[in-house]
Amino acid sequence: MAKRLVPLLNRVLVEKIVPPSKTNSGILFPEKSTKLNSGRVIAVGPGIRDKEGKIIPVTVKEGDTVLLPEYGGTEVRLGDKEYHLFRDDDILGTLHE
Amino acid sequence: MAKRLVPLLNRVLVEKIVPPSKTNSGILFPEKSTKLNSGRVIAVGPGIRDKEGKIIPVTVKEGDTVLLPEYGGTEVRLGDKEYHLFRDDDILGTLHE
Amino acid sequence: MAKRLVPLLNRVLVEKIVPPSKTNSGILFPEKSTKLNSGRVIAVGPGIRDKEGKIIPVTVKEGDTVLLPEYGGTEVRLGDKEYHLFRDDDILGTLHE
Amino acid sequence: MAKRLVPLLNRVLVEKIVPPSKTNSGILFPEKSTKLNSGRVIAVGPGIRDKEGKIIPVTVKEGDTVLLPEYGGTEVRLGDKEYHLFRDDDILGTLHE
Amino acid sequence: MAKRLVPLLNRVLVEKIVPPSKTNSGILFPEKSTKLNSGRVIAVGPGIRDKEGKIIPVTVKEGDTVLLPEYGGTEVRLGDKEYHLFRDDDILGTLHE
Amino acid sequence: MAKRLVPLLNRVLVEKIVPPSKTNSGILFPEKSTKLNSGRVIAVGPGIRDKEGKIIPVTVKEGDTVLLPEYGGTEVRLGDKEYHLFRDDDILGTLHE
Amino acid sequence: MAKRLVPLLNRVLVEKIVPPSKTNSGILFPEKSTKLNSGRVIAVGPGIRDKEGKIIPVTVKEGDTVLLPEYGGTEVRLGDKEYHLFRDDDILGTLHE
Repeated sequence: MAKRLVPLLNRVLVEKIVPPSKTNSGILFPEKSTKLNSGRVIAVGPGIRDKEGKIIPVTVKEGDTVLLPEYGGTEVRLGDKEYHLFRDDDILGTLHE
Repeated sequence: MAKRLVPLLNRVLVEKIVPPSKTNSGILFPEKSTKLNSGRVIAVGPGIRDKEGKIIPVTVKEGDTVLLPEYGGTEVRLGDKEYHLFRDDDILGTLHE
Repeated sequence: MAKRLVPLLNRVLVEKIVPPSKTNSGILFPEKSTKLNSGRVIAVGPGIRDKEGKIIPVTVKEGDTVLLPEYGGTEVRLGDKEYHLFRDDDILGTLHE
Repeated sequence: MAKRLVPLLNRVLVEKIVPPSKTNSGILFPEKSTKLNSGRVIAVGPGIRDKEGKIIPVTVKEGDTVLLPEYGGTEVRLGDKEYHLFRDDDILGTLHE
Repeated sequence: MAKRLVPLLNRVLVEKIVPPSKTNSGILFPEKSTKLNSGRVIAVGPGIRDKEGKIIPVTVKEGDTVLLPEYGGTEVRLGDKEYHLFRDDDILGTLHE
Repeated sequence: MAKRLVPLLNRVLVEKIVPPSKTNSGILFPEKSTKLNSGRVIAVGPGIRDKEGKIIPVTVKEGDTVLLPEYGGTEVRLGDKEYHLFRDDDILGTLHE
Repeated sequence: MAKRLVPLLNRVLVEKIVPPSKTNSGILFPEKSTKLNSGRVIAVGPGIRDKEGKIIPVTVKEGDTVLLPEYGGTEVRLGDKEYHLFRDDDILGTLHE
């Protein structure tokens, strides 16, 4: 069974981050603050061509933590792990501590 | 938990301004005049590429006060603060005293 | 509270002209002839970029009297004044005595 | 009150021609033959820009008699006269004796 | 009353050919074989501009016999004659004996 | 009556192939295997222009056997023969023994 | 009857892979993990032209194992085998052990 997916064109393979509902000391986070729809970039495609035929590289890279749109993304199961495929221009931004 | 968001492409992170309903001396503003849908620019993306592949920079900058469209914008919570993401070309104009 | 709006891209800020229903000597204009949807240009944006990335300036300028489409336009209140924002290519023409 | 309209972009100001229902000697034209939707060009806009930013002039000129599409056109009253605004590429052709 | 129409852009003026339902010797053609929607080209427009602003001439010429799509075309009466206006790229092909 | 059609632009004239339901020795083919929607190319148009105005030739040629989409195509009767017109980019592929 | 299909433009002929529901030693795979919609590339078209008329080659090649979208694809039977035709830009990625 296939273990690794190399996305095509400007697709990005992301593993969603499930935010902790409690702090380390067990205090519940307010429900609203944990609703950040984010994920870690696992693999990126080569990018798509512009009108002139030049390849436009993807704007995020492996390891980035990204903010995902509320909807969209294609679910992909590789072995027992669940990932999501997004188009580069649907990813909202990169998240930083 | 992520504190900072760097928008991608031509997205703009905005913190909405809640207009005061009263003057400093407590007089109520006429309800219609306080309905200006505005906000402050927190962060901007690098811009998008035109047909020739050149990057078109975003037209607003950090610190600008901007007039927002009545609808649209993606809500984003970072920690306990609420922001909104807009595309650069959906922002109507910059506001000045 | 913001007093001045600088439109972005090819937007045009217009103050609608409410046509007089009577002549100076008080005679009622025929209802049909006063239905001209017009306004005065208050401020214009820098314009939008064409495919080559060059800025295409807006075709009207501050002070022009313009013929507006029957529908469309975004209402904007600045202080106690009401304005409307139109895209440059939605404005039908310039009006002259 | 405004008397003259200069159309913007590739718009064309037309005064519709109401075809005579009778010949000079009073004979009724067959109803079908008088249904030609035509008009006289009063004023034309400067034209629109192509992808390269060059202005493409309008294809008709002041004084032309033109064949109009059955639908479309924006009604414009200037003083007590009624005109219609069409986009250049909606005008079907020029009519000649 | 206008007698001649010069089409604009890439429009083509066509006079529809009503196929004979019988052979010269009076034998009825099978109904299906006479349903060819064809016409003769009366006049053609100058063509439309491509992205570079160059005029692309119309692909058919005056006198051609053409195969017309089943639908579409704008009916135009000039005097007591009925014609149809088609866009060049809606005409299916040229017919030859 | 017209016998020959020269397609315009990137249109392709095809004569559909009705697959034999039995082998030469009379054995019925399984119904599913005979459902190949194919045809023979009779005539092709000159092609269409790209953005630069250059003609892009049609990708199939007279005599090719082609795989046709399940839907689409314009029926054309020439004399007592039935043909179909497809756009070049709707034809799925070429078939080979 | 045709045995071989050469796809046109940027189409890709794929033979779907039916994932084994059990391991070699007969243990049932969890149902969710076997739902990978994948296939093997049998043949690819030459690619499509960009705005400049240059051919953009297809991004996958014969023999690749690819991840297919949940929907779409045209079913094609050649002899007693079933294949599917996809457009190159609908294929999600290439799969690797």
